[in-house]
Amino acid sequence: MQLTRLLHIQNPIIQGAMARISTPVLVAAVSNAGGLGVLTTATSTAQSLQADLKAIRASTRKPFGVNLMLQQNNINDLLPVLLADPVPAVFTSAGNPAPFLQNLLNVGTTVIPVIPNVEIAKKMADLGANAVVAEGAESGGHIGTETTMSLVPQVVDAVNIPVIAGGGIGTSAGVKAAFALGAAGVQVGTAFLVAEETPVDQNYKQLVIQASDTGTVVTGTGANRVRSLKTPLTEKLLATTDSKLFQQLSTGSLQRAIDGDTERGSFMAGQIAGAIHEIRPVKAIIAELAKGVPSIIEYLY
Amino acid sequence: MQLTRLLHIQNPIIQGAMARISTPVLVAAVSNAGGLGVLTTATSTAQSLQADLKAIRASTRKPFGVNLMLQQNNINDLLPVLLADPVPAVFTSAGNPAPFLQNLLNVGTTVIPVIPNVEIAKKMADLGANAVVAEGAESGGHIGTETTMSLVPQVVDAVNIPVIAGGGIGTSAGVKAAFALGAAGVQVGTAFLVAEETPVDQNYKQLVIQASDTGTVVTGTGANRVRSLKTPLTEKLLATTDSKLFQQLSTGSLQRAIDGDTERGSFMAGQIAGAIHEIRPVKAIIAELAKGVPSIIEYLY
Repeated sequence: MQLTRLLHIQNPIIQGAMARISTPVLVAAVSNAGGLGVLTTATSTAQSLQADLKAIRASTRKPFGVNLMLQQNNINDLLPVLLADPVPAVFTSAGNPAPFLQNLLNVGTTVIPVIPNVEIAKKMADLGANAVVAEGAESGGHIGTETTMSLVPQVVDAVNIPVIAGGGIGTSAGVKAAFALGAAGVQVGTAFLVAEETPVDQNYKQLVIQASDTGTVVTGTGANRVRSLKTPLTEKLLATTDSKLFQQLSTGSLQRAIDGDTERGSFMAGQIAGAIHEIRPVKAIIAELAKGVPSIIEYLY
Repeated sequence: MQLTRLLHIQNPIIQGAMARISTPVLVAAVSNAGGLGVLTTATSTAQSLQADLKAIRASTRKPFGVNLMLQQNNINDLLPVLLADPVPAVFTSAGNPAPFLQNLLNVGTTVIPVIPNVEIAKKMADLGANAVVAEGAESGGHIGTETTMSLVPQVVDAVNIPVIAGGGIGTSAGVKAAFALGAAGVQVGTAFLVAEETPVDQNYKQLVIQASDTGTVVTGTGANRVRSLKTPLTEKLLATTDSKLFQQLSTGSLQRAIDGDTERGSFMAGQIAGAIHEIRPVKAIIAELAKGVPSIIEYLY
């Protein structure tokens, strides 16, 4: 099934959830422009989630998604909201949605786990997930180890549900390449991070725009691998072997970046930052990304 | 200029140089099948290089390439051979070819540096390189940090010479994606590693074929970052902080892999190993990779 039909959207472009950044204004803007906006719930309470859903629905009649990062400790508070007041789509990441996946499907929500490898993709397909996002390690924020170029075709071969490619995609060329790899759609984060509609300080956006192709670095290990722009903070994180200091430097560092603190902020961004050159409205970003999509789909299939 | 015209080859498929592996039999097979075989010189002397060139020319009348990995300590021995008896193409990697690039161009050799980022790509274009290979960190062996999906379109935007995409490409889907990213051709390593024509023990080929999408790991740092299959050796390398022990375990480990020593060998391979499922002749591998190439080029341009 084509992703646009599954999600009732015009363009197969998913806005990747960004903690503290993909708030209702961005979500509604992406959905209004024919993509799928995805709300972060990283810092939500049941009450604030209800308010966010209300704000999104007041701004768009188009479908949208909600992300649950399963390392969050608020999942049990948020799930009842999503079951009582169903949303079009839920994306899950960094954990196993098995305990509640069927409940979401039962209320009519499309469930799309973000996965880092073939084994987990297969498990999610077996559980009844409607699609998966295969996310390469070139992404910003918390990442796995496999790259989009290698991961996506292997996931496409392994499952019979649509595969959305994420990681390293921020331009029209990347979108076309994702379809050539067999993806049914793309997840884009960094390109939307610098949209006019994000609640992010100009310092953050300027650092993304000024970044070169080698402008990001990975800090941390295992479940704490994080890709962000090279800044004074990442230098300190890479220099220390003291896990207590690492933790202390990291805590609150994303919010400090959003507030524009270039010294102590963690400016999460993907490798494709080097290809992103201006602050634009969401509508212009989606228009560029979507250019030629129907044509390449027709060519490939 | 199209890469096929620059190199006088039928298919824009370059066989990536593999130390101790891409010896004359493989090189000639790739060139005879319409790609460009590339000889490794990692362990060559002037005399053995002359013998290798003779062996290649006895087996094919098609163009081929020679790789110079500039960390090798035999470069000053090999260069006079390549200047006295010019070859169609020289690929350089892991160093700056500025001191001799013009000399190679002067004898009619096409010079193509393998580059890990935009800055070095620009330098090589300014020096007069005929093309570059933009090689992502999903590659096997010695690698950089940027990935194919992100690196290739940024290099394509930055230089006016053909860009060959390398890293994560081992199937028809990857080849098409590379062209969508703006590449003029592809460099393929791991898929040729398991060709019938390589001087590699069956143990090595079987490990590649059995590898899953998460079957490789990166050991070492800086210029010593190496991607290989997860084996007892990589576990030991990742566990140690003793640089002397690391060195001791590493020395000779690629040859041990080629000889089939699964305990102590370094089985260098790229992430795309997970998508490679059989030992085949070079001709069959190239036929699969080249399928649809003229069509996608026509579609894109």
